[in-house]
Order: sequence, then structure tokens, then C-alpha cells
Amino acid sequence: MKTQANLIIASSETDSNLYYATRFLAPDPFIFLQLGEEKIMIMSDLEIDRAKTQAKVDTVLSYTIYEAEARRQGIADPKTIDVLNEFLRERGIKVLIVPADFGIRYALLLKDRDFTVEVKNDPFFEERLRKREEEIRYITDTLRHAESAVDKAIRFIRSAEIRNGYLYLGGRQATSEDVKRLMAVYLLEKGFIAQHTIVSCGEDTTSPHTEGAGPLQANAPIIIDLFPRSLTNRYYADITRTVVKGVASPEVKEMYDAVLSAQGVAVSLIKEGISGKDVHEAVLQHFKGLGYESGEIDGRMQGFFHGTGHGVGLDIHESPRISKRVDTLYSGNVITVEPGLYYKGIGGVRLEDMVLIQKDGVMNLTIAPKILEV
Amino acid sequence: MKTQANLIIASSETDSNLYYATRFLAPDPFIFLQLGEEKIMIMSDLEIDRAKTQAKVDTVLSYTIYEAEARRQGIADPKTIDVLNEFLRERGIKVLIVPADFGIRYALLLKDRDFTVEVKNDPFFEERLRKREEEIRYITDTLRHAESAVDKAIRFIRSAEIRNGYLYLGGRQATSEDVKRLMAVYLLEKGFIAQHTIVSCGEDTTSPHTEGAGPLQANAPIIIDLFPRSLTNRYYADITRTVVKGVASPEVKEMYDAVLSAQGVAVSLIKEGISGKDVHEAVLQHFKGLGYESGEIDGRMQGFFHGTGHGVGLDIHESPRISKRVDTLYSGNVITVEPGLYYKGIGGVRLEDMVLIQKDGVMNLTIAPKILEV
Repeated sequence: MKTQANLIIASSETDSNLYYATRFLAPDPFIFLQLGEEKIMIMSDLEIDRAKTQAKVDTVLSYTIYEAEARRQGIADPKTIDVLNEFLRERGIKVLIVPADFGIRYALLLKDRDFTVEVKNDPFFEERLRKREEEIRYITDTLRHAESAVDKAIRFIRSAEIRNGYLYLGGRQATSEDVKRLMAVYLLEKGFIAQHTIVSCGEDTTSPHTEGAGPLQANAPIIIDLFPRSLTNRYYADITRTVVKGVASPEVKEMYDAVLSAQGVAVSLIKEGISGKDVHEAVLQHFKGLGYESGEIDGRMQGFFHGTGHGVGLDIHESPRISKRVDTLYSGNVITVEPGLYYKGIGGVRLEDMVLIQKDGVMNLTIAPKILEV
Repeated sequence: MKTQANLIIASSETDSNLYYATRFLAPDPFIFLQLGEEKIMIMSDLEIDRAKTQAKVDTVLSYTIYEAEARRQGIADPKTIDVLNEFLRERGIKVLIVPADFGIRYALLLKDRDFTVEVKNDPFFEERLRKREEEIRYITDTLRHAESAVDKAIRFIRSAEIRNGYLYLGGRQATSEDVKRLMAVYLLEKGFIAQHTIVSCGEDTTSPHTEGAGPLQANAPIIIDLFPRSLTNRYYADITRTVVKGVASPEVKEMYDAVLSAQGVAVSLIKEGISGKDVHEAVLQHFKGLGYESGEIDGRMQGFFHGTGHGVGLDIHESPRISKRVDTLYSGNVITVEPGLYYKGIGGVRLEDMVLIQKDGVMNLTIAPKILEV
């Protein structure tokens, strides 16, 4: 009999480890355990029959039955931890391995009941980092739809006319909201959900995570950063393009070329075994060599001041990272490569592709073109 | 000088306490502290300027500056906890109050550095339970849009024609997916996002959380359960209606009346100070009195086997609950009242309104009609 088990108590709608382990989506927290190869869920009356049908686990147990057992043991109003306690006693489990983000309250309640709680640092499931063929297919499918949505957005911007420095379509001013809605509705109809999409313009582009709002300007950078999720398989994709309707300023054109070449530098370095930190520093050095300084300038962050990339899968931001932190890259990782430059009074440029890391290099999963002036 | 502080380390896109405290939305985890009245965020280079502009806090500090300080203290590759450590040393803070779901790994790392970590049980912010006027306005606004979406769904179903027991519109079979898409696209265009919407039909309605798929049947119950969230203020609403296109069976008609009267029983009991458990048990008793048994029947859960209601706000499921667990209701709570009955071979019926609890009763926030046959 196994005396230790992996344990997660969470909602699988927000906890991707739990969804990964069970492929079962539930809005309320439930108990998941893994004893050796056996995957077990303890489910409420509401979810138990659905879990039996849908969850990719070995055993689905009734919360209510263990709750009744806890009551027989003298607990008047049994809680989640009492239910878990009954199950652990029954199976003779003494040691629980939990993820880094396991809730401290449950951990303390388990310790009070003389269980040993051991934390397993991220990644809780190492296999999540190295994407299987099916997962790569899912991510690529989401990416293709993201690319189609961005293509529609760029066509929309291209088809606008310029009046007094602003974009107009069908007689009315075109806005950031128009472009976001166009992409979101298209994706929703295809079975994907896009939230927090960035369509920023002009000075707003100098703040990389500003979502953008209001009228779109001509002759100024427009950053489109879209990261939809499949409603069926729940895998994300991530893409960014920067365009100018009309004529880009010489500064923006030069920044665009610099960002494009920086992306090339990163892509050329990435392969099995390299540290994300080395890739990130090469990008910073490349920018510096071209005369682009990064850091706090005139009281705010300017230049290149975010990570070069991050893993993508069931979470939009997952390991590994290409950033100033040490993080080794392995084949099977799917990561973004997204350098950018941002200067007050000039604007921002960011280009983002997704690559699959292989032994000797990468396969670029993104096929959307990169064209500045549209 | 305060020697203790509230601490959250999370992403405000998933942690509603953090969003509540800061009104700042960020995809990656950040450090939030509250010292007495002072709210503090420690932000990465990427987010610091946006946080200074958008966050409703007193102080926004630079992660990078504390990271550099940690390096000066001899830490080669400083992590989040080292950055936090530098800040806590600077302010002389020794005791940290964290929420129940605070990650155990960070808690252990803080203890290693001789900080005291105290867990505050839910709710971390009591004031989240008693909705302010502005919050009630937000929730009601989301609810009105949800009601409009459900109205559109019901009109769609009503306008269908029946052929061979299935619904047809414009010559093709009407599906669950059609109805979900119609509601989701409408809501998206109004600035709301609806995920995991239920449009189940026939036998699928006997499983309360089955999302539903495929052709819609005539003369069988269709459950529509919709819970959109505002993309601007992030407040949810929740509504369920059950309809039959054509003629409902006598059993379904009786169940509908029973569920409707059960909702009336619950609403008549709810007021400041009552326990959710008492309300839930009254609903169960009411069903039993009408001859509806609940529990495991023929190997699966049947009858009424979910909670009667839950709080709604920045989370779709929040305190208090009306369920078999003891939970006192207070004025200012906004909760759902959603009894249901589910029997194999007959179908499911659920009706859900949202009410604002007051001193002597409730105000029903939901105004959408309840009509079975459409």
C-alpha cells in the first residue's frame, strides 16, 4: 500500500495542473489525489455523475459518503479537510505531496491532523513542459485561428481611410474597440475565447500591457497582441503584430527593423539546453549595439523592459521563461519570442511568434507575415 | 511603525481579492501589501508605469530596485521572496497576514526567513460580502444583459419549428451550440464575457452542470444557465431558465411548479441573520412534501442534489452559500436562489434568480419572466 500521494485541492477552471491531470472542468474546488498510477477525485453530489462520465481518472469517489463517515466520527459539520482526512485514513496515506501554490490553510489543517505535507516546486507535472504531439496540434490550431483573426484586424485597418490623422471606415471613426470586437467575435464563432486583447495605438503603445481604447491614429504604430484559448481543448496561442496605417516615421521603421532582427537573434540561439537568460541578454545586447538603451529614462521604463518570451500551453504564461532569470530550455517546450522597443514620444513596436524547441534549434509555429505599413 | 501587514502574491486576473484591493488587472503574479491604511504594490519593469496610472493603491514600488538590493546582499539570482524580504526588512515588518489560499511555498520561504505567517480565514476582505451601492449597480447591469441574452435565446427557441421531434430554424436543425453562440456574441458586443454557459436538452438536463451539445429536442426541457462577467467592472451575474418548445410532459410541468414554489419558499425565508442551511433544508423538505425524493436512486444522483444558492460578485461562486453547510446570511449579500429537480427518463428543471438580502427579506434583482412552454 502506498503511504504517500500527490494532492491538489482547487477548481480545474483556474488550476491548469488539475485540468491537465483530470481533463475535467469544474467551477468549484474539488479534491484530486494520485497514488502511484491511480488518479482519484472526490466529488460532490452535484458533480459526481458528470465526473464519472467525463474525467480521465481511475476512481471517482463520493464526497457525501466520506462526509457521513466524518459525522460518524463525531464531527458535527464536516469540512473539505475532514472528508479528505477520512479518505487518507482509509488508504493509510501519511505523506502528501502538494504543488507550490497549494493553499496554506489546507496545509496547516493537514499538519494539525499529523500528516506530512511536502511541497513539490514548479513544475508540479514536469511533462507539461514538453508538449506531446497532440498538445502541439492543439496549440497550432489555436494559433492558426489567432493568425486569421489578426489578419482580419489588419485588413480592417488597411481598408480604412485617413482623415485628419485618424482612421475612418464606412463614414465613422475606427476604434481600438472595433478591432478587438471583430477579432473576439470571429474567434468565439470558431470556438475560441480571447480576453485582455491589446489593440493599442500611438502613445499607448509605449506601455506594453495597456489594452488600448478609442480612435485609431494614422501614421502611428498599432500593436495587436492576441492570445486566444480553445473552448474545447483549452490550449492557448499568443501572437503580436505591429502595423502602421499610412506612413511610419523613420524612428518607428528603424525600431521595427531592430525588433525583427532581435527576434532573429533570439530564434537563432534557442535550442535544447540553452538558458533563457542567455537568450534574453543577447537580445538586450543586440538592441544596445543598435543604439537602443533600456531602463528608466525620464522617470519611466523605456527601451526593452519585458521578458523575451514565455512558455504557452494550458496557461498563457508558463515555464520556461526567456528573461533575466535563469531557466533552461528543453526540446518540446513551446515558447513565445517577443522582443519589443518602447520610447516616449515615438511609440512601441513588438513582434511575437511561437516556436517549438528542438534539439538543434526551433520550429517556428507562426506563419503570419510581418509587414509594418498597411 | 506597523510591524504587521496583509500580504497577497497572486495574479489579479484570477485572484479576486487582489483585484478587489487594487482594481488593477495583471496576468502575472505580483506582490501586494497593506500596512494599516497604506496599500502597496511591488511591480515588475513591465507593469510599474501602468500600475502607477491605473491601480487604486497608495504606493507602487519597483521590483527591480529591491532585486538589485537583494543582489547587493549577496543573492546571485534573487526571486520574488528575496525581493519581498528586502521590502519587509526596510519597513521593519515581522508578521504577515495571508489569505487561506496563499501558496504554501511562499509561506514556508517566509518562515525560513523568520517571518511569522498568520492565516486569515475566508473572507479575507469581509467587506466583499456586503455589496456597496456601486457593486449592486454593476451586478444588476450584468444581470440585465444576461436577461436580454436569455430572452434572445428563448425567442430563438420559440421561433423554431418542430420536425420529427427536433427544432428547426431556416431549414436547418437548431442546436445547443447555436443558442450558446447567439448569447455569447450578443454579450461580447455589449462588453460581457460568458463562459461555460449551459444549454442542455432532454436527458442531458438531468446532469446539472452538463453544458449540452447537439440538436435541440421539442417537447423536452431545455435548461439555459448563463453567468456572464462584465469586461469593464468584472462583476458577474447568474440566471437560469428552463423552457420546453412545444408541449411539456405532465411530469415536467409538475416539476416546474414544484421548483417555482421551492424558489418562493427559499425567498420567503431569506433575511439578515438566517442560516443558509435552514433555507436549504426548507427547500429539501418542500420537495419531499410534494413527493420528490432526493439522493442516489438507481446508481445516480436524482432529485435535488446541489446547493440552493451562492454569493455572486467578483467571483461567480463566493460566500455566503445556501447549502447543507452552516453559513449565516447578512444584509448586503447578493446571492442566487436556484432550486432544481432532476430525474432520469423525465428531465431536469432549474430556475435561478439573484436576490439582495435586506434586514427583513430580500429584493429580487432578477426581472426576467418564468414561462415553461414557449
